[in-house]
Amino acid sequence: MKIAILGMGNIGGGVVDVIMKNAAGIEGACGQPIEIKYILDLREFPEHPLGDRIVHDINIIANDPEVSLAAEMMGGSHPAYDFSLLLLEHGKSVVTSNKEVVAKFGCELTRAADANGVHYLYEASVGGGIPLIRPIKDCLASETITAIDGIVNGTTNYILSSIAKSGREFDEVLAEAKALGYAEPNPSADIDGVDAERKITILTALMTGRLYTPEKICTESIRGVSLSDIKAADAVGGTIKLIAHSSVSGRKSDIFAAPCFVPYSSPLAHIDGVYNSVFVNASVSGQLMFFGSGAGRYPTAGSIVADIIAVANGTQRRAVPFEKADDSTLLSPNEHISSHFYRVPEALADAPEFSGAVCAKTGSFAGIITPPEAHEAAVLRAKSLGGDVSVYRVI
Amino acid sequence: MKIAILGMGNIGGGVVDVIMKNAAGIEGACGQPIEIKYILDLREFPEHPLGDRIVHDINIIANDPEVSLAAEMMGGSHPAYDFSLLLLEHGKSVVTSNKEVVAKFGCELTRAADANGVHYLYEASVGGGIPLIRPIKDCLASETITAIDGIVNGTTNYILSSIAKSGREFDEVLAEAKALGYAEPNPSADIDGVDAERKITILTALMTGRLYTPEKICTESIRGVSLSDIKAADAVGGTIKLIAHSSVSGRKSDIFAAPCFVPYSSPLAHIDGVYNSVFVNASVSGQLMFFGSGAGRYPTAGSIVADIIAVANGTQRRAVPFEKADDSTLLSPNEHISSHFYRVPEALADAPEFSGAVCAKTGSFAGIITPPEAHEAAVLRAKSLGGDVSVYRVI
Repeated sequence: MKIAILGMGNIGGGVVDVIMKNAAGIEGACGQPIEIKYILDLREFPEHPLGDRIVHDINIIANDPEVSLAAEMMGGSHPAYDFSLLLLEHGKSVVTSNKEVVAKFGCELTRAADANGVHYLYEASVGGGIPLIRPIKDCLASETITAIDGIVNGTTNYILSSIAKSGREFDEVLAEAKALGYAEPNPSADIDGVDAERKITILTALMTGRLYTPEKICTESIRGVSLSDIKAADAVGGTIKLIAHSSVSGRKSDIFAAPCFVPYSSPLAHIDGVYNSVFVNASVSGQLMFFGSGAGRYPTAGSIVADIIAVANGTQRRAVPFEKADDSTLLSPNEHISSHFYRVPEALADAPEFSGAVCAKTGSFAGIITPPEAHEAAVLRAKSLGGDVSVYRVI
Repeated sequence: MKIAILGMGNIGGGVVDVIMKNAAGIEGACGQPIEIKYILDLREFPEHPLGDRIVHDINIIANDPEVSLAAEMMGGSHPAYDFSLLLLEHGKSVVTSNKEVVAKFGCELTRAADANGVHYLYEASVGGGIPLIRPIKDCLASETITAIDGIVNGTTNYILSSIAKSGREFDEVLAEAKALGYAEPNPSADIDGVDAERKITILTALMTGRLYTPEKICTESIRGVSLSDIKAADAVGGTIKLIAHSSVSGRKSDIFAAPCFVPYSSPLAHIDGVYNSVFVNASVSGQLMFFGSGAGRYPTAGSIVADIIAVANGTQRRAVPFEKADDSTLLSPNEHISSHFYRVPEALADAPEFSGAVCAKTGSFAGIITPPEAHEAAVLRAKSLGGDVSVYRVI
């Protein structure tokens, strides 16, 4: 099978490496050799052993009947989406690590794949190297997934677990994460939850078949998470993690990407550093969790190669295209039904609104409150008194 | 597709339930309806809606050309093995939850499947409801798995985590586990590691293609794990779990099922209760972990149904049959290269053999020693002084 690589960056270069170094194993798994015929990039790579495969025009790939698959690792919406659509329309399967494109244009691309009898696969777009999309699809094949809770962003998980472990504040830990290469120079897409928002959009589409508009998902930054919050959470028996959540109940979807209180009884509370982990509630198989490297050159390349193999050896099943979800079925932030974790000034400790809370005094006062009605009263009271108040959903 | 159910016990009854209740979803996933034509059992089930499908003679199933698959959930070696072989030889695929049969007769059965152009699948034999075998196989398709560490027995994990949580001793917790139905009236297969030994035999065959004799695997009971050991482990920063381990280095295989010291930095340390979790080290994808219900009627039934669907919809790839492994390539217990966790009488705290240990005084003295040479000296010294000595491998 002849394939094209779109984008020779960190992930794309990793995929080329893996295909070259692991040719025999991949041929065995595919039942045929995989040959990289083209590498699309703006740059030249004269020193690279496959430097002669570089092209700059997507039409060369689209119009070559020998090419049956392209791996898109360009990043960004455009031209990644346009190139993917063009190739699908030319009867080529596309596999991708580009969560932005899947989350924004998944309907169009899965529809184009279906119309042209080819595949649009995106194992590498969520959870990096973790086999996740395929097991969930296999599981979903006859079961209902009722809820997903994931730590799907390694940068923010590194920062939050570092605050907890080192006892330092957010800014200092973020600076260290940048120095170590775990955070981008402009870390907003990670820190402010945009990356997690895209990934939970994709996971929700796997659960329901419907793709929401990622920008409509309730998303909160981790910039406001303080060392005091994490210490208070620890005293109550949990920690703060950026959780991407999706559950569907009736016509309404409860979807968010936000820092949450995670009790230590949940395995998610113990996922530290740059790792990712996705917790799934399935109707027959029960609680499942998938853990691994959420990013990185080789883990992500491994997922791209797994998708290529599934197409090459013919075991990839045709998927039903995503439908556009009705964004008005999203619960608004105030409607989210869950318990809440509070850290409030000690002056509030005896307030009746907090009487149901599990209490822990750690300089400030912290506790957990259910149900949501009590939550609203507590927020009002806390705000009326002013001072330093933190509120997190409990998962 | 018409199928047969072999064994109408806890799991078999669950599979029948799921297939009946979830018929539409399964038909969608299979591309065809699944009909249970026969249920093989010694008993009659006159009240069951499929009571008229009960047969007592395996030959009826073997000789019916309409039946293309059987789900074997009989338990025990015989006649489960004999029936499975007969059906494979009659050109029927077999899916199973029977780890005893897979571990003991996996070579014969995968060979028979291959020779007859059908499948022998066993997703439900390890990790109950966890999608595990299929993701590992997909991953293995082009990668090398270098090591597996699993909590694969829910009964022992329930007991060990209950000792840690409740501060009670082994005997009391075992009695409670029996009362709750988490332990069998005769719990030896779980407690003494036989179940874990079979499962790590199967996982090793997935890694290497070779099936060791399960009885040759180094296996240790959890009967000797005391509350004092678990308290001392906690003081050193970890806990005691029954770990099924397999790693291959050169010609030698390091495989065991034994209670081990698991540091809190490992996600496995936080897997509590009857859950299972399998940690995998893959050459490209890195560290992966799969978590879920390791047993139970419906989770296990879900894995059986997933295997049935893969056969029915044609996405199941033909597998290379297992080869018999050379049992002499197993490392003997004394050759296992790892650090060790000790709990010894306080009189030994100042002995030079323990000078490299991370120390914690918790009534007795506990610590971790590397390398293995130091381990041997320490064991000799501890034994020469007599008293209460516990030693666990560190994973």
